[in-house]
Amino acid sequence: MPATQPQLPPVDDAHLPHIAVIGAGAWGVALACAMASIARVSLWGRTPIPPGSRTAPRLPSVTLPARVQPVVDLPHEADCALLVVPTQALRTASRTLHPILAAECPVITCCKGLEQGTALLPLEVLAETMPDRKRAVLSGPNFAIEVAKGLPAAATLAASSRVFAQEMVTRLSTPDFRLYVSTDPLGVQLVSAAKNVIAIGAGICIGAGMGENARAALITRALAELARLVEAMGENARSVYGLAGAGDLILTCTGAGSRNYSLGVELGRGTPLETILGQRTTVAEGVLTAPTLRQVGPRYGVETPIIEAVSRLLAGELTPERARAELFGRPTAAE
Amino acid sequence: MPATQPQLPPVDDAHLPHIAVIGAGAWGVALACAMASIARVSLWGRTPIPPGSRTAPRLPSVTLPARVQPVVDLPHEADCALLVVPTQALRTASRTLHPILAAECPVITCCKGLEQGTALLPLEVLAETMPDRKRAVLSGPNFAIEVAKGLPAAATLAASSRVFAQEMVTRLSTPDFRLYVSTDPLGVQLVSAAKNVIAIGAGICIGAGMGENARAALITRALAELARLVEAMGENARSVYGLAGAGDLILTCTGAGSRNYSLGVELGRGTPLETILGQRTTVAEGVLTAPTLRQVGPRYGVETPIIEAVSRLLAGELTPERARAELFGRPTAAE
Repeated sequence: MPATQPQLPPVDDAHLPHIAVIGAGAWGVALACAMASIARVSLWGRTPIPPGSRTAPRLPSVTLPARVQPVVDLPHEADCALLVVPTQALRTASRTLHPILAAECPVITCCKGLEQGTALLPLEVLAETMPDRKRAVLSGPNFAIEVAKGLPAAATLAASSRVFAQEMVTRLSTPDFRLYVSTDPLGVQLVSAAKNVIAIGAGICIGAGMGENARAALITRALAELARLVEAMGENARSVYGLAGAGDLILTCTGAGSRNYSLGVELGRGTPLETILGQRTTVAEGVLTAPTLRQVGPRYGVETPIIEAVSRLLAGELTPERARAELFGRPTAAE
Repeated sequence: MPATQPQLPPVDDAHLPHIAVIGAGAWGVALACAMASIARVSLWGRTPIPPGSRTAPRLPSVTLPARVQPVVDLPHEADCALLVVPTQALRTASRTLHPILAAECPVITCCKGLEQGTALLPLEVLAETMPDRKRAVLSGPNFAIEVAKGLPAAATLAASSRVFAQEMVTRLSTPDFRLYVSTDPLGVQLVSAAKNVIAIGAGICIGAGMGENARAALITRALAELARLVEAMGENARSVYGLAGAGDLILTCTGAGSRNYSLGVELGRGTPLETILGQRTTVAEGVLTAPTLRQVGPRYGVETPIIEAVSRLLAGELTPERARAELFGRPTAAE
């Protein structure tokens, strides 16, 4: 069957659960592909994908599986909805979606970052816009193209209720996409947002010629910093060291594929932030997250020198050499 | 002054502490260079470096600082000794050194691995050969050449006594080489040994075409596995997530520079272990560590599926595809 021809789902798929993927960016398309191995999937994009289409513009090299159906209208009858819109679009999207989804349909956010202006994490936004829904967050070290192709990957699914988190892990795990239960949605979301800021710092190390030892030390000490922060917030540091934290940082900070990391590299080489941003059409989320994240540590009485240094570098208040001198000049500490 | 001419240390260095570096491999030479910014250094190699020489064969691109003096005889009067010999040579070296070093001279091991046959960690070997000495371990994400060049780097210094660990951190930290205190030498040494095994696994992911998501997931889940193991041994998991653990894994598993990682890549591509080892003149420590490490989990009642899988892959009992199926086929778990 040619790839351009609509593929109707096999008749015996009717018994499968129906998952709605809201957002047809690269990650939304990838999740739709992954979920197709266990469910019928409706894929909704802000810019609609023609219903019979077997490709999605944001991940054009992938042929959509037969069980993925692009839809123009938001789906009413899903058993579960994955919200894969950018963090800054989450409020509007979830408000629109709220009266449409069935009351018992759980909602999983799949975005990373803090809402500008409110400094709220994704599930905190949903607590306002969808207060009556069961909510969870999915986050992990996942390049979209690899997940779309069915290469093995893992992620964390976090909800405050262990029973609900386990239920969603059971329902959404596939043979290629392995989910782990977490009951620390706060930690998972915070570290997911912070990793973009740390990735900029890791890029700066390399761009400024400080080397791979410095990059590894920066990532590790940034994890320690985030662990202290999450603990001060009353949660366990485990999520910091899990797939959404350490795992995603390993993925992000070592490939040139990351927008945040590559922005850091350019910044480290001495290119002014305005010049870098002017040359880009995509957003490096960490640039938006840093000024807000910088305020979180002091609020909890926790020193976050690396987040602080990256924020000041982005704000033009610090050079890489000065940042290095300040960080290395701090009193010795326990690990 | 030509580089071939002996450089005598400036006269006013006499007040500086005297550090003996035992072992003139790449890491020994690098540590000697780093310590030269705060101390007079005697550098002893099994194959002696001519006393006036300003270069060392194992790190030939580096000019030795004036304060580093290659020595032919083991130094009697050091204030501190860094043992930078391979793990398998540690017993003999420390036995030889014991009657020579002053009784109050603390000894820091800087090697990673388990002793073959005994399955002892470096400090456990020293407890037998130098029972009356103060002992600590130094480990971190440190490519030797970068440290030798004075690029910024960090590492963990662990001893069971916090006072002694802090004292050594204060004495050995330099403006470019930042040390962190740990009171968990067991965890630091175990994760340092294990990281070579994990690095082989990470290489296999890439060599077998499983992708970067799989590699990040493997590293993260291996850290969780090691954390469970260290906790079962009665220690805090913090060292697993510190510079000697997560930090070193980040460095090792993402550059082609690591012998263990690159061995994993070849193994993942389907090259038999014997063929890979036959083509190499250097040792990939993880190959030696795996069979011993594999026995540690069961001894403490802890499942270590990734260490087990890498060990079976090395033993030819498993293919990468089968390992992937087994790991992804495990029951879902909490992070």
